[in-house]
Amino acid sequence: MAVYTEVADGDLEAFVAGYDIGTVLSAKGIAEGVENSNYLLVTSAGTFILTLYEKRVAPEDLPFFLGLMEHLAERGVNCPVPVRNRKGEALGTLAGRPAAIVTFLPGMWTRRPRLEHCAATGSLLAQVHRAAQDFPLRRENALSVKAWRPLFEKCKDGADSVMAGLGKEISNELDVLEAQWPKGLPEGVIHADLFPDNVFFLGDRVSGVIDFYFACNDMLAYDLAILVNAWCFEPDASLNATKSRALLTAYRSLRPLSRAEVEALPLLARGAAMRFLLTRLHDWLTVPDNALVVPKDPVEYYRKLRFHRAARDASSYGIEP
Amino acid sequence: MAVYTEVADGDLEAFVAGYDIGTVLSAKGIAEGVENSNYLLVTSAGTFILTLYEKRVAPEDLPFFLGLMEHLAERGVNCPVPVRNRKGEALGTLAGRPAAIVTFLPGMWTRRPRLEHCAATGSLLAQVHRAAQDFPLRRENALSVKAWRPLFEKCKDGADSVMAGLGKEISNELDVLEAQWPKGLPEGVIHADLFPDNVFFLGDRVSGVIDFYFACNDMLAYDLAILVNAWCFEPDASLNATKSRALLTAYRSLRPLSRAEVEALPLLARGAAMRFLLTRLHDWLTVPDNALVVPKDPVEYYRKLRFHRAARDASSYGIEP
Repeated sequence: MAVYTEVADGDLEAFVAGYDIGTVLSAKGIAEGVENSNYLLVTSAGTFILTLYEKRVAPEDLPFFLGLMEHLAERGVNCPVPVRNRKGEALGTLAGRPAAIVTFLPGMWTRRPRLEHCAATGSLLAQVHRAAQDFPLRRENALSVKAWRPLFEKCKDGADSVMAGLGKEISNELDVLEAQWPKGLPEGVIHADLFPDNVFFLGDRVSGVIDFYFACNDMLAYDLAILVNAWCFEPDASLNATKSRALLTAYRSLRPLSRAEVEALPLLARGAAMRFLLTRLHDWLTVPDNALVVPKDPVEYYRKLRFHRAARDASSYGIEP
Repeated sequence: MAVYTEVADGDLEAFVAGYDIGTVLSAKGIAEGVENSNYLLVTSAGTFILTLYEKRVAPEDLPFFLGLMEHLAERGVNCPVPVRNRKGEALGTLAGRPAAIVTFLPGMWTRRPRLEHCAATGSLLAQVHRAAQDFPLRRENALSVKAWRPLFEKCKDGADSVMAGLGKEISNELDVLEAQWPKGLPEGVIHADLFPDNVFFLGDRVSGVIDFYFACNDMLAYDLAILVNAWCFEPDASLNATKSRALLTAYRSLRPLSRAEVEALPLLARGAAMRFLLTRLHDWLTVPDNALVVPKDPVEYYRKLRFHRAARDASSYGIEP
């Protein structure tokens, strides 16, 4: 939750004048999205989201992200669509930062995902994977298995201050993940961060998917493993296998999983838990005291990791192994 | 800038169902307002602001604040109007907190007030003062001269950590203000916090005034002295007397100032600077490290206070003494 960059009203008006979207009526910083500054922008032509890209997003990746949203929207995925300015560009500069205006999506994210939400999100992910199949740009996953150990090196000294023994646990776990990480599974563009706050619902129906700023090329089943972590655990850190079954079954009905993908699921879920454990641990230890962001608890993902480590096969997630 | 309270989507839908404003399409926490949690609420019937009142607002004051907004709006002031629910109530409960839905006002607050903005805000304040003349409820100013020393007592131990000698300066200044504070000037309902972020403009015209959560009964000219502090200083802490003349002249053209009010202006401005110096100092020293709020610099108001202390009469503010 953060607005990092304040935009002067005059600068904003000049920026919006470069687009064919009327004049500015209102712009309010919204407390969503940790990485970027987001404004809800109301103009005489409608409602939009204005995003200023902050330093954690590499400018050279922006054509991938914005192009992906356009590509998905053209194929029927309800995601924000970048608005092009009068020069035909989706990307501009505002307050010294790369900036884009995208369409506004109605809907609310669900704070307490129920079974219907999990199933709907499984379907949504399969739609995204299918719609992105012919997306021509590529982006490496900057947070893949290769990146985990260097990230851990940056924060390992503080790990035990978060939980006694955590440093050693992570180090051992990384040995296993690096040695056994699956190879050769079907790849494509993955969302890589499809948490509940990035899926909008109206009632029990998905109305939109947002925040493609971690999207990249990687194993499709890894994206599904991220969803199991993000959607299917109860507050006490136990997996709700009814939810994971619903999510996985809904996904498979649109994109069938190979036997190898099903077999890899526990290990992929373990890796996904490690990825969020490490980024949370890093943020926990490095976020400045005066930051607008409240860092998320890393230990939640350590508990999930332990669950996945104990899972023998896909039956732990409620589906046939 | 803060969203303090997260509202579960189901709870919000149930709350909104108590009003005749359609169904919820979107609700985004907005990074405006330090005291309360504010959401921009889009429903099938339009756009609204949902406010959850946090602990710094006393629930018993809410009928005053909400009633004042209704009263002003009925008299032509463009301010948010509380929406009454199906039971006819402007105040409800959501997420365990008092909550209200008010109308949405288009407009942007100005980050760099120019002369036109200062004049327009002077007029606006006079309109508010006139429109509130017959408002029947009363609320004491909880941050009046009486409240300053107790507030200082709470934070004086840390004052010198903010600026060497600040504690002694404040203590001496409070002696003067308590001894000389004006009495007998015209009173009424004052806004008491009419900073640039509470005045919306479309172009150079005022489109609305918000945030009545410090409004109270006090000397009207004290409100004007707050405006001089809030609108007429340049970033280097020097007063721009052209701006203060424009602001004061615009105000007087709608509500003439008595000779006693003009004479009291330097002292009232000095007191207003003290009030914001003290609340900022208190927040600076007490805001927890993990807060969503970045506290504002108290020293800015110490510098303004020094300007007012040196002012001989109203001519320092660009008007005839």
